[in-house]
Amino acid sequence: MMSSKNIKERIDDLQVKGYELIQNQDQFCFGMDAVLLSSFAKVKAGEKAIDLGCGNGVIPILLEAKNKGAHYTGLEIQKDSADLAIRNVGHNKLTDKIEIVEGDIKEATKIFGASSFSVVTTNPPYMIAEHGLRNENKYLEIARHEVLCKLEDIIRESAGLLKERGRFYMVHRPFRLAEIMSLMTQYRIEPKRMQLVHPYVDKEPNMVLIEGCKGGNKRLKIEKPLIVYNKDKSYTKALLEMYGE
Amino acid sequence: MMSSKNIKERIDDLQVKGYELIQNQDQFCFGMDAVLLSSFAKVKAGEKAIDLGCGNGVIPILLEAKNKGAHYTGLEIQKDSADLAIRNVGHNKLTDKIEIVEGDIKEATKIFGASSFSVVTTNPPYMIAEHGLRNENKYLEIARHEVLCKLEDIIRESAGLLKERGRFYMVHRPFRLAEIMSLMTQYRIEPKRMQLVHPYVDKEPNMVLIEGCKGGNKRLKIEKPLIVYNKDKSYTKALLEMYGE
Repeated sequence: MMSSKNIKERIDDLQVKGYELIQNQDQFCFGMDAVLLSSFAKVKAGEKAIDLGCGNGVIPILLEAKNKGAHYTGLEIQKDSADLAIRNVGHNKLTDKIEIVEGDIKEATKIFGASSFSVVTTNPPYMIAEHGLRNENKYLEIARHEVLCKLEDIIRESAGLLKERGRFYMVHRPFRLAEIMSLMTQYRIEPKRMQLVHPYVDKEPNMVLIEGCKGGNKRLKIEKPLIVYNKDKSYTKALLEMYGE
Repeated sequence: MMSSKNIKERIDDLQVKGYELIQNQDQFCFGMDAVLLSSFAKVKAGEKAIDLGCGNGVIPILLEAKNKGAHYTGLEIQKDSADLAIRNVGHNKLTDKIEIVEGDIKEATKIFGASSFSVVTTNPPYMIAEHGLRNENKYLEIARHEVLCKLEDIIRESAGLLKERGRFYMVHRPFRLAEIMSLMTQYRIEPKRMQLVHPYVDKEPNMVLIEGCKGGNKRLKIEKPLIVYNKDKSYTKALLEMYGE
């Protein structure tokens, strides 16, 4: 574990509404997946949204910047990350719009009450706990591997938190798509919209964005692929737009 | 129904091994989906394969042309289509390699016995029975709408027909992907490989090819997209290769 005497912080410009994000380089720093999810998700005027596993708060802050929602909540189990998220909310003067709660996703419906949100977003750990290279850094291990909560916990709690016809938005890895769709269906969050993210136009996808609707009817729209890089390795126009350029 | 005095037949070159296909223009004529499925599916030396809902027999004939499998079966419920498939097998001198059986997919495991095939292929009706424009032509209605058999029937019977670790190959429409994955998982045919087919590189997909493995582990590989047309509306190289050019 990190000593508190040796905190390595940096401040990043979020390139939207002048917001900035304090990140700790020893904890999990946000990546492209958070940016893509916050562009893919929509929070309408008057709606309340919750981000499950919010880390340093990047998704609630980006969602607030890009949407007209009434209120945003971030739930984070790691105290150091939740503390950082609270500082980030304060730093951007968003304490009236965003609340950060330290707590366990597995208890989310108990904490917030059933059917209490119109929107759930989540950028969960991608890797099955026993798979892949484990990380000796506890922060990264918990953010990347299903150590503290599994995909089924997240989908079950999302179904509990959402109002009927509420929307669920997740970014994940394509290799788990069958599990994702099967669990969403099992918990009545019908998959409605999906976009695959490919690094290059002629490469396999490495991310999937998915939208579900609690109690929705069975009809999935697969969007055109989102391509990250042009052949010359520059970002595509679609990507630059999401980064606010 | 068509009168037998007024049969409109044509013969198409299948562009592989000199095979030809007799088609009845009032029945269901094969399309690009059959060609894509027969390229996506693999039948290894010594394996037995069955095509569920084989129509005029195009998929077993193309599979035989492209693979080293020991034997191929086509199951078809419509007598006129099954009769045409039998003629097509004879026309191509394949009666020792391909058998056409007239029967109901819903009874397939009963007809052929459990765990009797290494490979199942299917190009089923895409449309939910009560959805979309219905067709007054009975042949087309049955081929395109789930009138006589539903997706769940096909996946349940495929699971019954397949040996443990046997492979399931299907072409379908993307809007039903969530149901497909959920049903495959439910019947222990784990989705292992998927390819989306897009008419153009910047358009939404209009077909999905999927491979499952009975009793396989949970890990899906999504391949790079298959693009049908170049910007100038000519076929892409990938497509032309599948058409044997």
